[in-house]
Amino acid sequence: MAQVGIVMGSDSDMPVMAKAADMLEELGISYEMNIISAHREPDELITWARGAVDSGMKVMIAGAGMAAALPGMCAALTPLPVIGVPLAGSKLDGMDAVFSIMQMPPGVPVATVAIDGAKNAAILAAKILATSDQALMDKLVAYTKEMKKQVEAKDAKLHELGYKEYMKQK
Amino acid sequence: MAQVGIVMGSDSDMPVMAKAADMLEELGISYEMNIISAHREPDELITWARGAVDSGMKVMIAGAGMAAALPGMCAALTPLPVIGVPLAGSKLDGMDAVFSIMQMPPGVPVATVAIDGAKNAAILAAKILATSDQALMDKLVAYTKEMKKQVEAKDAKLHELGYKEYMKQK
Amino acid sequence: MAQVGIVMGSDSDMPVMAKAADMLEELGISYEMNIISAHREPDELITWARGAVDSGMKVMIAGAGMAAALPGMCAALTPLPVIGVPLAGSKLDGMDAVFSIMQMPPGVPVATVAIDGAKNAAILAAKILATSDQALMDKLVAYTKEMKKQVEAKDAKLHELGYKEYMKQK
Amino acid sequence: MAQVGIVMGSDSDMPVMAKAADMLEELGISYEMNIISAHREPDELITWARGAVDSGMKVMIAGAGMAAALPGMCAALTPLPVIGVPLAGSKLDGMDAVFSIMQMPPGVPVATVAIDGAKNAAILAAKILATSDQALMDKLVAYTKEMKKQVEAKDAKLHELGYKEYMKQK
Amino acid sequence: MAQVGIVMGSDSDMPVMAKAADMLEELGISYEMNIISAHREPDELITWARGAVDSGMKVMIAGAGMAAALPGMCAALTPLPVIGVPLAGSKLDGMDAVFSIMQMPPGVPVATVAIDGAKNAAILAAKILATSDQALMDKLVAYTKEMKKQVEAKDAKLHELGYKEYMKQK
Amino acid sequence: MAQVGIVMGSDSDMPVMAKAADMLEELGISYEMNIISAHREPDELITWARGAVDSGMKVMIAGAGMAAALPGMCAALTPLPVIGVPLAGSKLDGMDAVFSIMQMPPGVPVATVAIDGAKNAAILAAKILATSDQALMDKLVAYTKEMKKQVEAKDAKLHELGYKEYMKQK
Amino acid sequence: MAQVGIVMGSDSDMPVMAKAADMLEELGISYEMNIISAHREPDELITWARGAVDSGMKVMIAGAGMAAALPGMCAALTPLPVIGVPLAGSKLDGMDAVFSIMQMPPGVPVATVAIDGAKNAAILAAKILATSDQALMDKLVAYTKEMKKQVEAKDAKLHELGYKEYMKQK
Amino acid sequence: MAQVGIVMGSDSDMPVMAKAADMLEELGISYEMNIISAHREPDELITWARGAVDSGMKVMIAGAGMAAALPGMCAALTPLPVIGVPLAGSKLDGMDAVFSIMQMPPGVPVATVAIDGAKNAAILAAKILATSDQALMDKLVAYTKEMKKQVEAKDAKLHELGYKEYMKQK
Repeated sequence: MAQVGIVMGSDSDMPVMAKAADMLEELGISYEMNIISAHREPDELITWARGAVDSGMKVMIAGAGMAAALPGMCAALTPLPVIGVPLAGSKLDGMDAVFSIMQMPPGVPVATVAIDGAKNAAILAAKILATSDQALMDKLVAYTKEMKKQVEAKDAKLHELGYKEYMKQK
Repeated sequence: MAQVGIVMGSDSDMPVMAKAADMLEELGISYEMNIISAHREPDELITWARGAVDSGMKVMIAGAGMAAALPGMCAALTPLPVIGVPLAGSKLDGMDAVFSIMQMPPGVPVATVAIDGAKNAAILAAKILATSDQALMDKLVAYTKEMKKQVEAKDAKLHELGYKEYMKQK
Repeated sequence: MAQVGIVMGSDSDMPVMAKAADMLEELGISYEMNIISAHREPDELITWARGAVDSGMKVMIAGAGMAAALPGMCAALTPLPVIGVPLAGSKLDGMDAVFSIMQMPPGVPVATVAIDGAKNAAILAAKILATSDQALMDKLVAYTKEMKKQVEAKDAKLHELGYKEYMKQK
Repeated sequence: MAQVGIVMGSDSDMPVMAKAADMLEELGISYEMNIISAHREPDELITWARGAVDSGMKVMIAGAGMAAALPGMCAALTPLPVIGVPLAGSKLDGMDAVFSIMQMPPGVPVATVAIDGAKNAAILAAKILATSDQALMDKLVAYTKEMKKQVEAKDAKLHELGYKEYMKQK
Repeated sequence: MAQVGIVMGSDSDMPVMAKAADMLEELGISYEMNIISAHREPDELITWARGAVDSGMKVMIAGAGMAAALPGMCAALTPLPVIGVPLAGSKLDGMDAVFSIMQMPPGVPVATVAIDGAKNAAILAAKILATSDQALMDKLVAYTKEMKKQVEAKDAKLHELGYKEYMKQK
Repeated sequence: MAQVGIVMGSDSDMPVMAKAADMLEELGISYEMNIISAHREPDELITWARGAVDSGMKVMIAGAGMAAALPGMCAALTPLPVIGVPLAGSKLDGMDAVFSIMQMPPGVPVATVAIDGAKNAAILAAKILATSDQALMDKLVAYTKEMKKQVEAKDAKLHELGYKEYMKQK
Repeated sequence: MAQVGIVMGSDSDMPVMAKAADMLEELGISYEMNIISAHREPDELITWARGAVDSGMKVMIAGAGMAAALPGMCAALTPLPVIGVPLAGSKLDGMDAVFSIMQMPPGVPVATVAIDGAKNAAILAAKILATSDQALMDKLVAYTKEMKKQVEAKDAKLHELGYKEYMKQK
Repeated sequence: MAQVGIVMGSDSDMPVMAKAADMLEELGISYEMNIISAHREPDELITWARGAVDSGMKVMIAGAGMAAALPGMCAALTPLPVIGVPLAGSKLDGMDAVFSIMQMPPGVPVATVAIDGAKNAAILAAKILATSDQALMDKLVAYTKEMKKQVEAKDAKLHELGYKEYMKQK
């Protein structure tokens, strides 16, 4: 029983969407990953998305490029929150996917993150799950502290080395 | 038994999509018009689009704005040619709908026309039907001649009146 | 103790952001609404956003236009999920706000909805709360059914009246 | 006697437009391919496009980049349906060609497909021909089933291997 | 025998294109104005554009909106310099016309001016004619001096009145 | 002897640029306002901009629309800091002016503010002057506090009245 | 005494602008090429542009990237026709230069060609000179015929070889 | 005690932001460079920005990409002039950062320079400091003269060698 369902329309999307899976693993959140194309397999999409609640899923992450119908169709088929990841793999560098995912009509929202922002999609999913899971929220707070520490460490290194030496060592 | 199925996601799209119906009527082509929302009624869309071939339909015209999934989902559900009309009714003046309709993945084309180009969608549908209907092709040729005559008449009037008088009379 | 915190940077944003409050009321979700400017009141923002978890808040909705820093700064200050509403009130029709809200760096996601999509922000907040509230999920399912019925009713009316009569009555 | 006429303005367009020919061959549709420049050979274009109906052609596919006049001029010169392929070979990644092809005035539609979408142009041409050719429609249905199978196979492989192993094997 | 041929695709373009005629009149340059649609009257366009040199024309000004093929097709049909005016009358505020006019392939230039810049098209035509007409160049120099005087007068008035009073009197 | 020189290319820019003057007055900063067109009065511009330092000026504010050369040419002609205000008065809503002002080559910066952001240009000028004027910095700090108070007052009113009543009273 | 003055703001523009010189040489038109920066050498620009008419120059070609003030300032300083070449050498692929060059205010036109369209700038210059030089017009007509022949030859080769073999030989 | 504070959100921004430091060194202006992320370290940002005036800082330079909140938040936290550098390191080539930095609300300006324009940010900072430092202004005037000399030298070399030889030697 996975808490988060990751879905993408093509295996060419996997290198980006894998970052969502990596992040969920790091946070100890169960997930499943699927390749289902809204435009090539509408029936499979319906079956999967309609069955999500009963399977115990809590959040969906849908990544798609170009005329990215997948996240919106997921949102049409499930009451679960759907996070959309616009993918850049086209001549338009993902702006086509941004519009196709973000500009949803009233009643059917998709939570859109940055272009190729699969890692953030996972963190957003975690934040959603953490609204009823204090242990997970503690992990998120710790993750945020760790991020902060890493920036502080870089800043300290910069002040120690100066930027010329810093860039050489990088 | 309608040859052309017009579908739109909302009755707010009707003032533009009505131009497609008007044009089909002018060309003597049978049509049906429907309001079916891809994001609000996925099952109805599937039933309608999957049944189109058996009902004798030959071409679909789908108009949608914003994250315009309707034309692409129609194309996913029927082997018929689908014409997509990007509608301008959003803050982005239809560019969101253009990307959502035109940028379809390999295997599932949508024939995209201009923003708010419902009249041209009807003419394109007629051109498609005319590939096996000589009488309709004759009508299209006549329509083209008539368009040409109208421009010629305006040009003649311009040369007669001069542009200052022409603009006054308009 | 409000479940959802709505925040906007200026009272000129209220006509749009009020739609979020209206929708939350319709779904029976408690909320508070605030005017806090990231650029004019950074301290107030920090106090409010940092205190959100302790106040029992579960989700934030932040609406902003132009260089819309508010949603992202909220996301920087709380582990709660933050929904961002890009507002159109500038010469760039909201595209500036889309980029400022959606393109968040790794680690700090904002769930971006459509330009001026405050109603959808509320529904997304409800979907998030419903991940641990079955009664609310039932309401969302009912809301979705109601939306579907309304489109069906319009479609039925269209088939009864024809589009010419339909548009006259509208 | 070719059913589909493919035309492009320059042989630099051939690597993309060849995908249309490949697809037509796969579907058993006869075609001819031509290099005719609207801006460099207007007379040749007129002769070719005007003669298309009499030669037995049913559909045109016109690919062009930049100020892509070719598809629109074809549509001005023949009653046949014209499919336009916006080509990306410029500093603007094909957006110039999209506007030049899609934004046709009332009366003269071009069926625009995705940027560099030559394969989809061929499938759209097949869908048009299939409106009066049941055997071709059967092929299209089979092609769609095959596409679906391929995605299903990838999804099955993903569930078998997991995404980390899947990406290694790719 | 007109020195400048103004051509537009539709009489809806006349209010803008009339500014070119007005300016040519002010500079004492003979012109003719025509309504010829590239997409609706390709033969008329060919006849007119091909005959331009023999009729004694020296420069063409072509205004068009949307998929603005007219200026480019003129440039394909005549060795005369062609000035293109992108017209704003579409949902895209003229950006479609800019790309369709400006992005011409090597060998067939169009001299593109600003969106709705018909007045500047006339001045550019005058500058071209003035390369072999000293009297006209003198007029252009005088026109430039007059423009300068008008700005100077406004600046003087501003310094006299102050901006608050200046705006009241406007 | 004015500390700030405001310059605009046309008196049609005055309603926006007046906001800069209003703000400078509010902060007690001396200024002069001029109408000088880079494209129509290059000599006047050179004279004015070259003489600025000797006249005692410290900062320039230059507002322009479309191909907005004025701010960049000022920056080319004076060692003073130049603030550029992109003006929206064109079909492109100021994006043309943004690019023309902001994208300066290395060595010749212009400090670009928001589209139509004349008020902010004045505040930026004040911040620049305040780097060597403690009294002015105190005024700026007070101004910032006042802005904050106004937002706080609106927030308090919102909490007192609720948003429905608040919007009615507005 | 050069008929055409080519000017660019930096020697990094030379690889593109050299195509203008190449083309002018091919057409036997005398030219001079200069590096003058509007933003770094305003005085040099004024001296050069103001002296152009007296030196016998007939047309200017100005290439620039980013906030491309050079073409417009040339147009401000000379009554000669100025052709502007927007250069792509920035993060914005030349769109910044397009707006900075094309969107000139009334009274001061620049004849804008395609992004990086230096070759077309030379042909446009030739067309301008040919308005009073029959021998040059004959050369342009011959050049156009030669272009046409080259496309015809490619088309013939395509029909002889088929596209698969054609692409191999390329 | 540094006069200029350079701040960036990530060490991936350093290769661009280093150009600001290089330029400040060349002009003999003291600076400090910091890595502080607005979204990951809001408290550190507040401490640093709030303390800037007391530390003797006069100008801030803040570089950021994507949803670039850093420059705007600096401007919210200090009365010092803040220069924003939009960084190109995203799929949108810096346009997201341009909007996030430039489109600041009234009262809180950021002086935005070109995409990746860190060198110009330093020169602008110098121009600001030079409003009360004659020696620095003299350096800036000398720097401008030096830039001019370099262009003149290139132009002289071009006239000596011709463009073909010039490009070979480059």
